Amino acid sequence: MNKVIEFDEAQSTLYCEAGCILETLQNHTKDLGYMMPLDLGAKGSCQIGGNLATNAGGIKFIKQGSMHSNCVGLKVVLADGTIIDQMDPHVTLPIGYDLKQLFIGAEGTLGFITECAIFCPPYPKNRQVALLASNDYEQIMKCLQISKKELSSQLSAVEFMDWESASIAMDYLSLENPLSDEYKYYILIEMSGNSQEELLQEQMLELLEKLEDHYEDGLMCESETQKDQIWHIREGISMAASGYGLAFKFDISLESKDFEDIILKTQERVNHLGGRVLGHGHIGDGNLHLNTVMKGFKDMDTAKQIKEALQPFVFDYIKEKNGSVSAEHGIGLLKTDYLGHSKSSEMIGYMGMLKKVFDPKGILNPYKVLPDHAFKPGTD
Amino acid sequence: MNKVIEFDEAQSTLYCEAGCILETLQNHTKDLGYMMPLDLGAKGSCQIGGNLATNAGGIKFIKQGSMHSNCVGLKVVLADGTIIDQMDPHVTLPIGYDLKQLFIGAEGTLGFITECAIFCPPYPKNRQVALLASNDYEQIMKCLQISKKELSSQLSAVEFMDWESASIAMDYLSLENPLSDEYKYYILIEMSGNSQEELLQEQMLELLEKLEDHYEDGLMCESETQKDQIWHIREGISMAASGYGLAFKFDISLESKDFEDIILKTQERVNHLGGRVLGHGHIGDGNLHLNTVMKGFKDMDTAKQIKEALQPFVFDYIKEKNGSVSAEHGIGLLKTDYLGHSKSSEMIGYMGMLKKVFDPKGILNPYKVLPDHAFKPGTD
Repeated sequence: MNKVIEFDEAQSTLYCEAGCILETLQNHTKDLGYMMPLDLGAKGSCQIGGNLATNAGGIKFIKQGSMHSNCVGLKVVLADGTIIDQMDPHVTLPIGYDLKQLFIGAEGTLGFITECAIFCPPYPKNRQVALLASNDYEQIMKCLQISKKELSSQLSAVEFMDWESASIAMDYLSLENPLSDEYKYYILIEMSGNSQEELLQEQMLELLEKLEDHYEDGLMCESETQKDQIWHIREGISMAASGYGLAFKFDISLESKDFEDIILKTQERVNHLGGRVLGHGHIGDGNLHLNTVMKGFKDMDTAKQIKEALQPFVFDYIKEKNGSVSAEHGIGLLKTDYLGHSKSSEMIGYMGMLKKVFDPKGILNPYKVLPDHAFKPGTD
Repeated sequence: MNKVIEFDEAQSTLYCEAGCILETLQNHTKDLGYMMPLDLGAKGSCQIGGNLATNAGGIKFIKQGSMHSNCVGLKVVLADGTIIDQMDPHVTLPIGYDLKQLFIGAEGTLGFITECAIFCPPYPKNRQVALLASNDYEQIMKCLQISKKELSSQLSAVEFMDWESASIAMDYLSLENPLSDEYKYYILIEMSGNSQEELLQEQMLELLEKLEDHYEDGLMCESETQKDQIWHIREGISMAASGYGLAFKFDISLESKDFEDIILKTQERVNHLGGRVLGHGHIGDGNLHLNTVMKGFKDMDTAKQIKEALQPFVFDYIKEKNGSVSAEHGIGLLKTDYLGHSKSSEMIGYMGMLKKVFDPKGILNPYKVLPDHAFKPGTD
């Protein structure tokens, strides 16, 4: 289940089994001059089948779009053993109902993904990375908006971190602060393309000029090593949080203008309990990782207090703002009751009916995604 | 049903009703500095709801991806009057089953689309257009592959026309041949981006240098007028064909390396009957418009002979090559029996079950998409 089947250059498409590790696929396609359209912190352990089942977003989402677009073929085994083979090798525009879309994001509750075909664009020849900092969140928002508009499809990533996130990662990875001071908020801007290095550099400098009034400190990376270092900080946050102690992780969809507000309100609720709030994420897509960590793993009383301070507070906040309780980590077992915060009862009703069509006995990933009232196995 | 509801700059998202004409939306977003991710010849009359229902591809598909990615919200009325409101304003990564994906491409047979939210990237500031010609189709394929690899996400369109297609459009539109001679095959290459005009020009020249050995004649447009003229030829083919006489149109998905083969084989079958074969389409996505026209509208005997020469020949050819009988024009009434050429009986069975979930009485666009055996209204 972890074999690369083929890379079809004419179609820029990777065919592989679902158990392939994302990073293995990244390396495989890079060697051929192409790029997996998906990248995320867990790349070293997550499998492409799981990425599809959870409709993973990640760092490249802003440029490459979602798995609903990049997954051009899927083979799925249904609960009764039927194989749905939609690996259509040469068909970019599917006809009839596009069944494969249903399995993307269904967390394995409608069928088991065994193979997939992923569209991979050419690997960009050059990239430029800048890190900008401000104590004023509104200025970070300005940087985001201007970068999106100016760079358009050359903007290959735009990430947000607050100081708590950046510093926990720097401590954990023993990296130095790349800027000379501490700032509340950071925005990482990456552009990439196939034009010559100097042309890209020029474009990044032009952008930074336009952003001039909107950051207090910043840098444009001068070497590949420096680019990697900046990315290490951003990508190290999750691991650093897990190494620090107990971590309470929320992965939410929210308008990016509200990121600061929910971070501050969460701090108010948990700082006095010893909780440390880390806010970071894919600011270009409105996807915030809102994590609270506490030192060590043993103080269960405090852990309980922190948990109660966070939940249902975070979910209620999201409901009020029309956000979503899970952006790219799925619903799983724990959040089924909160599906109703983002979906109407009619929609949940139809989801239950779809489950009944594909898995009437409820044997695929039972109890996940759908709340109990939406689906009871074996009823007709 | 034809109102623009809102353009949300922070999310680059257009909210509108389903009856809006595509071209109206293109103009509306362009005025705001953004671009509809969809463009096709029928833009002046087609509606965005129909584009979604048929999962339209079009010229920008190669850069912008499919409606499955760009449609970020949908409101649908089901057969029993239930409203499925998935307009989730701020959620880029949907959770639970992504119901809206089912209605995209279902041609109105599962529900009636009333509103949608479409992600629109910033309108690129500059574009460069080149037209290359060769009598050797393999060289056209080389131009395609090299352009894709070199330009990557800056490649905003790559279109194919044969001489019959180009010349019928030039005659119809009274445009002059932009090259000094006639060639069998043409490839139109457009790149776009936000970098300065001169930088883009430089990049296009670099590309043309790399393609040097692979075309016999060609030009790089020197003015906006010339760019528009080249595009008029490409976009005028469909209308020119309809004005010429009876037209037999196939819109198929096929590996682009097979485009020439099917064109030649079709010519063999219809040329002696007076049929003129026009091959053109989105070569970057393997989407060929294979049209046969005959002069005038009255000779029904010849029309019948041409029809019989084309069908089932074209569908059988596609089945053998694992292509698809309809790329972006849907299945409709006429092609339901050919769905089995591209889809397994298991898949068609599950499509029938989905139809039963959403429209058990079969009142939405009856007899369309699914073959009779897959769905009988009212049975349980």
